[in-house]
Order: sequence, then structure tokens, then C-alpha cells
Amino acid sequence: GYGRFGIVHITDDGTGDSATNVTSRFRLQIDATAESDAGVTFGARVRIQQNEGQQGMTNGARFFARSGGLEVGVGNIFGALESFRGMYPIDLGLTGHNYDYTAYNFRGDAYSSGGLGNSGDNGVEVMYSAGDLSVHVSASDTDDRIAATVAYKAGGFDFGLGAQDSDNAADTELAAYVSGSFGPVDMTLAYADNGTAGDHIVLTGRFDVGAATNIEAYIADADQWSETGFGIDFNHSLGGGTSLRGGVSTGGSVGDETLVDLGVRFDF
Amino acid sequence: GYGRFGIVHITDDGTGDSATNVTSRFRLQIDATAESDAGVTFGARVRIQQNEGQQGMTNGARFFARSGGLEVGVGNIFGALESFRGMYPIDLGLTGHNYDYTAYNFRGDAYSSGGLGNSGDNGVEVMYSAGDLSVHVSASDTDDRIAATVAYKAGGFDFGLGAQDSDNAADTELAAYVSGSFGPVDMTLAYADNGTAGDHIVLTGRFDVGAATNIEAYIADADQWSETGFGIDFNHSLGGGTSLRGGVSTGGSVGDETLVDLGVRFDF
Amino acid sequence: GYGRFGIVHITDDGTGDSATNVTSRFRLQIDATAESDAGVTFGARVRIQQNEGQQGMTNGARFFARSGGLEVGVGNIFGALESFRGMYPIDLGLTGHNYDYTAYNFRGDAYSSGGLGNSGDNGVEVMYSAGDLSVHVSASDTDDRIAATVAYKAGGFDFGLGAQDSDNAADTELAAYVSGSFGPVDMTLAYADNGTAGDHIVLTGRFDVGAATNIEAYIADADQWSETGFGIDFNHSLGGGTSLRGGVSTGGSVGDETLVDLGVRFDF
Repeated sequence: GYGRFGIVHITDDGTGDSATNVTSRFRLQIDATAESDAGVTFGARVRIQQNEGQQGMTNGARFFARSGGLEVGVGNIFGALESFRGMYPIDLGLTGHNYDYTAYNFRGDAYSSGGLGNSGDNGVEVMYSAGDLSVHVSASDTDDRIAATVAYKAGGFDFGLGAQDSDNAADTELAAYVSGSFGPVDMTLAYADNGTAGDHIVLTGRFDVGAATNIEAYIADADQWSETGFGIDFNHSLGGGTSLRGGVSTGGSVGDETLVDLGVRFDF
Repeated sequence: GYGRFGIVHITDDGTGDSATNVTSRFRLQIDATAESDAGVTFGARVRIQQNEGQQGMTNGARFFARSGGLEVGVGNIFGALESFRGMYPIDLGLTGHNYDYTAYNFRGDAYSSGGLGNSGDNGVEVMYSAGDLSVHVSASDTDDRIAATVAYKAGGFDFGLGAQDSDNAADTELAAYVSGSFGPVDMTLAYADNGTAGDHIVLTGRFDVGAATNIEAYIADADQWSETGFGIDFNHSLGGGTSLRGGVSTGGSVGDETLVDLGVRFDF
Repeated sequence: GYGRFGIVHITDDGTGDSATNVTSRFRLQIDATAESDAGVTFGARVRIQQNEGQQGMTNGARFFARSGGLEVGVGNIFGALESFRGMYPIDLGLTGHNYDYTAYNFRGDAYSSGGLGNSGDNGVEVMYSAGDLSVHVSASDTDDRIAATVAYKAGGFDFGLGAQDSDNAADTELAAYVSGSFGPVDMTLAYADNGTAGDHIVLTGRFDVGAATNIEAYIADADQWSETGFGIDFNHSLGGGTSLRGGVSTGGSVGDETLVDLGVRFDF
């Protein structure tokens, strides 16, 4: 798991005044597995995750059977779109800000670290990877969603294409991305057709500044927002699984305001 | 602990239609103990157990002091009838179905894996075993229950007799069983006088089919049901603490319908 | 963590009758840390604590960064007054009884083992120790509390002085203590000015009786009580982290009644 703590500042917290508050998260991950004589791994994952001002319970469990490159999961499934590589090209600042750079905009089944996700909802998924190819199909009773993604690496690029069918008109219908490195910069262009929520397009970049520091940035534009979103962060490793992180974002879901965070993350 | 997942099918889920759903359980058991210089073990057990569609908290704790064959427990006690050997002669299929083959029909104090059980209710129990003899007495403020059971192994048979006094007329008053092996078949005959809920009688058998597979079956008849209950299952070890399990049951508490489950269990 | 269980007796439980009940507590402590290359330890602590008749969740997390004698904490902070050495000079009996011997009377920020404490409330604290000196400053948005304590050991004595400013007139304003050993007896005199709740003064003693047993006792007088409070206990080590404990208290917050507990504690 990991812990993180620091401060988060918003120029207007809804009261007309700016606010600076302590932010934190504690995540304890419990992976329990057993392996059959034939080499199939059966397992379950639960998390106890709590943010500042919260107590913790275990979330909905995800169960899986895995053999070679094939994995079947049930319960609190990862979700094909949520696990689609181009959807989290960066992780901004300490807290991730509002994840405006996640093009499918959470309009599909997704693992919930603090809740049930698709547990109790007949969540089922199949993941397959072979060499440079990854395929992921997930389905649940939530709006009868079924989603599939294919990702492939070739010639120094990473391509992905996904689609979803659901009874919810505001769910993602199509998602695609391409990632590549241009000199010192890793870039991703991602796009999603989010149904009645319109198009969502994201461009992100990451580059290293010295041995222990990197900078990440995004531009995100979505039909549902009146303004284009921007953000930039830094991540500085302190060694031993600890790092100093901070970021600033504006526009997009943050609107006219500016969101700033800064703090420490430690992995354990 | 253990995990299990699979599917469960019921011919009528109450809406007039059949239903097939994902079923799962995640159980994490935490046993914490310390031993005094005189050799008395003091300990506590809690579980985080969650079924499909549930998050998890720790259940009510059971505390104990144990020395040699004597154990005193308080809190979320096991319960004399619940721990009585002949009450769980088999464990049907993946999920246990409705446990119609548990003759005392949960009409007594019992350990709760997901709730409080008798924690907060002055649950107290004393367990004693010496050689082939086991004695268990439990009591709580729930309907002022007090229950006692004696189990004894002799001549290849396992005999047990139990009784309970409580303020609840629908609680078990008497329970008894006899178990034995007849060639390749382990059989148990169990009976309970469940007060105003009437008599409950159960016959179960288990036999091995090859090195890694067994079959279990039961017939259960209770005055509270309009039909006799039946069930049969298989358990096939996959090695490494993993197994494939499935069962089918009908009658008894399932009524006219048929309940089928199939899936995988893994111990960790 | 630890477990404890036993019985607690009160001469009148509010119904006019005395009551004797099972008491228990299970505490599981999870400390997760990572250390940076520069030697700073970052960490988080959560507890799952449950008393008799309770299930458990993790409490509010406390996060910290520690280097040498300096520690900064946020979230469910310890609190300067709660951590002030003279506030818990003894721990009476099995359950601590009502902690009438804690002079600041919980009128300040304090770590909560079962709840949020100051998590979500901008709880922040700085602790510094060097040799015989300890300094602790804590603050939160709860009544805009800020508290500071200084403790110092010199000449065989332990001295402490603390002060708090808050928007709550019933919060502690001043606290002080002095501890020392007089032959076989460790004594502490503690005082707090608890604002509109008046003065609170406590005298405690502890002395060893043989190699494995000690006796603790207190006299506590507070303006908020009609009677002076008294209590005495014994703690007898059984080895291996187990102990037998019991105490009796009356007066103070217990009023005319008498509270008795007896049981076992085991550390794990």
C-alpha cells in the first residue's frame, strides 16, 4: 500500500474564499492467493483505503483466476476502460487533482478502492496478454455495460482502441490513445467519445529533470466543460519508496479556480 | 482465511424467474495470542468476512484462555450447539446452500463471522476435551440461553448429545447425533428437538471418488418445512489449497425450487 | 496491539441495580513506514479497536515525518495535552476506569483509537525531544485549539508545563505536573485549569510488590465533581506479555457508586 499527506489549496472552495487544508490518504492492500497443482493462481484483493477525515473498511473484493497471460476476474473488477493504458498517462501532483486527463471520464465500470465497485453487480472480466498485445473485456449489470479494449506496442509506439455498449447514454462509447517518446518526452494523446457528455481529448507529456525528478503536464478539452483544462506537476524521489510531489491545475472540471497540492508519498 | 467465487443459480428468485448470479466470499482471519510463563494461552480472534456485494469490518471478537484440554471463551463465542460435531456433517457445494443439514437450525448461540454474535451479550463458554471425550457449555444473555453438549468417540463411532434451556420457545431443546463409517461411506444421523419449530432430522453421507474428489449428500426433514430437503455436491481438490466445488439442493427451506452452485475455493 | 477481557461490576448501572458484565477490547495496530535516503522516516498509523459489543473499522490515520528528535504529525494527531507525560501517570485496573486521574480531562485534541480524532480537521503537531527535554505543540480546527507542552527531567524529577488556547471555554487552559520517586514509590502530582470546568488536581502513586506485581492508586479532586475520586489497582505479570489486572474506584465521575474490574490483558 501507500500513504500520502500534505496540503491542498483551492482558490475558491465554494464559499467565495480560498481554502488550504490538510489532505491525506492511507491505503492498505491485501492480496491473498493460492496456486493449484496445474499452475492456476486463484486470488482475491481487498483494500482498506481512507482519505483525510475518513475511517476505513475493506472495499468490495476482486477475485481472479490467472494462468499464463490469461486472467478472469469477478466482483470489484478493474474494468476494461479504467485499466486501458492511455487513460492514466500521468498522475498529477500529490492527489491526482480531478483526473481531467482521464479521457473516458469514469463513464464505465471501474475498480473502487473505497467502495463496492461492481461487487454485487455480476462484474466479470477477461484479460489476455501475449507479447505486445493486451486485450481486456469487462461486463456488469450496471446499465448492462460491456466494454472491450485492445492495446498494442509497435515501433516504439503504444496504440489502443476501446469500445463500450451500455444502457446509459452518458457512458463512454469509444476510446483511443497513442503514446510515444520524442527525445526526452513521453507523450500520450487520448480521446473518448463520451456519448451525451460529448468528446473528451487529452494531451499529456512527461520528462525527466535530473536523475530523481520528473515533470508531468496535460491539456484536456471536453465538450462538457466551458474551459480547457491545464495542469503541471513535479515528482521528486527521496529514495526508499518516498517522494515529494506537487501540482497545479485549472480549467476543465476545476472551472475558473486553481487547485494546488504539495506533499509526501511513501510506499510500503 | 479463504476466498471462494463462482456462480449460484436458483430456479425462481422470488420474481417468478430463475436467476444466475456471481457469488463470492472473502474471509480474512486474525488470530492474536500470547502465552504466559505457566503455559496458559490467551488470545483473540476476529474475522473480516464479506460476501459478494459487501464491504468488510471486523466481526465481534472472541477472547479465550486455554490450557491443556480446557478453554474458556467470552464475547463472540462459538456456542455449544453450533460447535457440536454432528451439526455440520458436510458442507454442501461452494456456498453451503441453506445448511438444511444443520439439525439445530441455528436456534442457539453461534459464532458470527460477519456480525457481533454474542459479543456485548455476556457470551461465555467452557470447552473441555480429554482423549475421546469433548464437553462444551455455553451461555449468554440472549434469551438467557444455556446449552451443553457432550461428544464421545468409541468403537469407530462418534456419539453426541446436547441440550439447551432458553426463554425462547423456538430455540433448540435437545440435539443428538451418531456418526460412523460403513465401508467407503462416512454417515451421520442427527436430530434436534427445535421447540415450537418441531423436530429436525438429518441423514448425510460422504464418500471418496478417486484420490482428489468426494461426494456429499443429505436428506433433511423438519416439521417447519412442507417438503423434505435433499442435496448432493462434489469437492475436487486442485492442489495447493484450491478446490473446485459444486452442489444442488431442493426441498426443505428451498421449497419447490432448486439451488445450484459451482465455483472455486482457495485457502490462504 | 493487545487484547483484554474480564468482568466489570458497577454498584448501580443507572437502573437502581448493580450490574456485572463481560468487558473486552481488541486493538490491532498497523504502523506503516518508509525511510528516505536522507534518513527521514515517513509513516502512518491506524488502529482497529473494538470493545465488547462492537465491530471494528480502522480509525482516522495519523501521518508523520520524523528525523532525529523532530517529528511532524498530521491527521489523527496525538495532541500535546493527551501526550503530556503527567496526564496518564497510571492506568487503573483492567479498563482504565473513567480516567479521573487524567487531569486535563480530555479537554483538548487527542488521538482517537476508535474514531477520527482530528483527521479531517486540519490536525497538525510538532514534537521535539533532545536529551531530557520534550516539547510538543499541536493545533486543529476544533475550536481553533492550539496547545503546547514542555517536559523536562532533572535531579530525579520529571516536570511539565502546558497551556492551551481555544474557542471553547470548557477547554483546558493550563496543565502542569511533577513526578518523582520516593523510595519504592513513584508519585505524580498533576494539575489542570480546565476553564469553566474548574480546577482538576490528581495525586497518584505506584509501587512494586515483589518482582511481578505492582499497585497503583490515585486521589483526584475536580470542581466539576461533588465528591473526591479514589481508586486502587494491581497489575500482576504472568510472563510472555500477559498480565492479570484489577481495580476499584469510587467518587469523582463515578459519583456514589463503586466500579470494579478484573481480568487479563495480553500484548501481541
